[in-house]
Amino acid sequence: MAVATADHVVSKDDVIWAFGPELEPVLEVEQGATVTLQTNDCFTGQIQTEDQLVTAIDMTRVNGATGPVAVRSAEPGDSLVVEFLDVRPVDRGVATIIPGFGQLIDQVRSPVTKVFRVDGDTVHLTDRIAFPLRPMVGVIGVATDGEELSNAYAGRHGGNLDDHLHGPGAKVYFPVRQPGGMFAVGDMHAAMGDGEICGTGVEVEGEVTVRFDVLKGKHATWPVTELAGTWVAHGTSSGDFHEALQAACEEAARLLIDHWGFTPEEAFIFLSVACDANVCQACRPSPFSAIARVSIPKIAACPRPFR
Amino acid sequence: MAVATADHVVSKDDVIWAFGPELEPVLEVEQGATVTLQTNDCFTGQIQTEDQLVTAIDMTRVNGATGPVAVRSAEPGDSLVVEFLDVRPVDRGVATIIPGFGQLIDQVRSPVTKVFRVDGDTVHLTDRIAFPLRPMVGVIGVATDGEELSNAYAGRHGGNLDDHLHGPGAKVYFPVRQPGGMFAVGDMHAAMGDGEICGTGVEVEGEVTVRFDVLKGKHATWPVTELAGTWVAHGTSSGDFHEALQAACEEAARLLIDHWGFTPEEAFIFLSVACDANVCQACRPSPFSAIARVSIPKIAACPRPFR
Repeated sequence: MAVATADHVVSKDDVIWAFGPELEPVLEVEQGATVTLQTNDCFTGQIQTEDQLVTAIDMTRVNGATGPVAVRSAEPGDSLVVEFLDVRPVDRGVATIIPGFGQLIDQVRSPVTKVFRVDGDTVHLTDRIAFPLRPMVGVIGVATDGEELSNAYAGRHGGNLDDHLHGPGAKVYFPVRQPGGMFAVGDMHAAMGDGEICGTGVEVEGEVTVRFDVLKGKHATWPVTELAGTWVAHGTSSGDFHEALQAACEEAARLLIDHWGFTPEEAFIFLSVACDANVCQACRPSPFSAIARVSIPKIAACPRPFR
Repeated sequence: MAVATADHVVSKDDVIWAFGPELEPVLEVEQGATVTLQTNDCFTGQIQTEDQLVTAIDMTRVNGATGPVAVRSAEPGDSLVVEFLDVRPVDRGVATIIPGFGQLIDQVRSPVTKVFRVDGDTVHLTDRIAFPLRPMVGVIGVATDGEELSNAYAGRHGGNLDDHLHGPGAKVYFPVRQPGGMFAVGDMHAAMGDGEICGTGVEVEGEVTVRFDVLKGKHATWPVTELAGTWVAHGTSSGDFHEALQAACEEAARLLIDHWGFTPEEAFIFLSVACDANVCQACRPSPFSAIARVSIPKIAACPRPFR
């Protein structure tokens, strides 16, 4: 696997299992720096074959995130801007069916482990069932303003956001809540569908190369993602998708009203007619977070991430 | 507005307000026929200006669907295949904020009406706020196997499915439950976002040109939509999005298992890692249906709509 050129490399041994307010950086950089972060798969390599089941592993070593990296000029009230230059999985991943998780759990055997082969732009579940590579990272976040949340959960700091749009080319604006921001990333998927209905994607080790920037004095409540044609607002809840969608709609409305000058009525109607309210994570039953996103088209009236 | 070449034209005066088991066709055609259906906007033209509010109109004349058209060879157990050759809105539409509807209703004045101008590929909410045209039809359906459902609702027959993917190029496979199928269409939107969170899109009159075909002896439970790169399964519920998503996941799994030979475990994992479970309609609060879809990539293992 080629390592993209970067100013710094962080090892997958530098891992955190939760995002809280007090994180010690493993690396400090200036804004503009590029960093390659090597990431464990979500099971920290504990599942390598189809006879290794999720019920037999150490569940305290799940969803590790590599980092944190401090960006020196990032202060509370800023946005830490993380551009995903590349997301490169290794050539082998796993998915699992977990007892008690997901919309079809009553129709299947469980637990089950499946091993996937990644070959160029294609992921193979079996000889017959192959589908497109869509690399992304499930856990991306920064230090919180108080609470400590295991990386199994998502919140206003990011965490287990599980938005498949977080792949190469995405630029994420994290609300900085502690000096340096303290960025960490993990839970790479060679592919993951919106909803992640069995609770896993194609879980895979890999490398993530990012460029850091800082936007002074401007931020949203949750991470906001910039893609080629859209701004993506997020909302999370403790498990009810309606609540997550409500939060994401309110967050998107704040962008439209507070930053882009829409009236509340214009914002509500614009969200309904021109923006897509959608699913990131809706595995159910699941003891973890539900996550919604609202994609806002980059029209002339919404030219920048924030006012 | 140019009328695309079609074998037949159905007037917007030929309208139904509900889908039930006993519908009288306004036109009978052979499979292969093309038909242009002229459609009312969802308010049947009752709202033309911003001082006309949704609270003052006749709510029995809402969501009319033009038709029904019978296709002679379509019999129960078949799929009626409707290819949307074109969806052409007129140059003026409306959206409304409706008391009691939608995620942001507590933050806005209501009722409110906004008039939009459609200019080529662009829709204008105000001089400042313009966004891309994305024409689609909200109400598409066929006769039911027993129940009668107002066009405000969605169900196994289609109805108010509100999937923005139902625009030009989409091919929808409806489960035929009565001889002739009895297709009707209405509720055109110049644009509508996934979720339709205020309860309306850009509601607009227009013309829909379709080609009918029949697939003998094969069908799903809800309408299944074919796009260039995906098969789209649907699921509906009386209002809870989790229930609609559950139904759509089960429907997608039936396609994978019953028609394309996946094991239940392969289907569950494939849905989680490679398919997108998402929102069609999730306006809340709303007294009407919640609608979810699952998009399945057209990989080699899923070559046809049904076995």
